[in-house]
Amino acid sequence: MPVELDTVFQALADPYRRAMVSRLVEGGPASMKELAAPFDLGLPSTLKHLKVLENGGIISSVKEGRVRTFSVREDGLNTLRTWLDAHQRHLETGFDRLAAAMAANPEDLSDGE
Amino acid sequence: MPVELDTVFQALADPYRRAMVSRLVEGGPASMKELAAPFDLGLPSTLKHLKVLENGGIISSVKEGRVRTFSVREDGLNTLRTWLDAHQRHLETGFDRLAAAMAANPEDLSDGE
Repeated sequence: MPVELDTVFQALADPYRRAMVSRLVEGGPASMKELAAPFDLGLPSTLKHLKVLENGGIISSVKEGRVRTFSVREDGLNTLRTWLDAHQRHLETGFDRLAAAMAANPEDLSDGE
Repeated sequence: MPVELDTVFQALADPYRRAMVSRLVEGGPASMKELAAPFDLGLPSTLKHLKVLENGGIISSVKEGRVRTFSVREDGLNTLRTWLDAHQRHLETGFDRLAAAMAANPEDLSDGE
C-alpha cells in the first residue's frame, strides 16, 4: 500500500513529530515513555503523534509483552526522497539551462554583465 | 529569514499545491491564470494556495504591469533537502551498523548486540 504524500508531509509538519523522528533516527528504537520524556506532552498526545507518524509510513512499532517499541522504518523517508529528488533535479536542470543561455547570450540580459 | 520547517511541510501537504510546484518546476514561470487552468479551482483558491507556497519560501512572484508571475525559487526546496539528508544519512548509517553487527554475530540476533 503506497503511502500518500499528503499523509507524509502532514506527518512531518509538526515540531513534536519531527523531534520524535530525530530521536528515533539518532538514538534507535524507543518506547512511548522514552519518546514522551523530553517533551511537555502527556502520553495520550504522544501516542496520537506516533500514530500519525505510523500512518505516514515513517515509523513502525512492535509490542512485546506490555511494552510497544517504536522505530523509524528503513524505507520511512523514501516517499519524500522520491518526490524531492524528481523536483529538485528538474529544478537544477532548469536553472543550469538558464545560466547556460545567459552565458551564451549575455547581451539579452537587461541587467547583464 | 529562515523558513520554518512546519511551514514548508505544511505547504507541500496539499495535492493542489504540489501540482502547482510540479507545473512550475517542469514548465517554468507562470501566471495565476495559467496555474489555475488545469484544476477545478477558482482564482481566489489558487491565489490562497500560491500564498502558502510563497510563505513557505518555495516560490516567489514578480508583478509586471497587471500580471503577477510565479516561479519556483532556486533554493525553494533546500530547507526540505537539508532536513531529509541529515535524517536519511543517519538512518542509513544506523541500518548499515545493524546489518554489520548481525553479520558479525548472527547468534546474538534475538537481543540486539
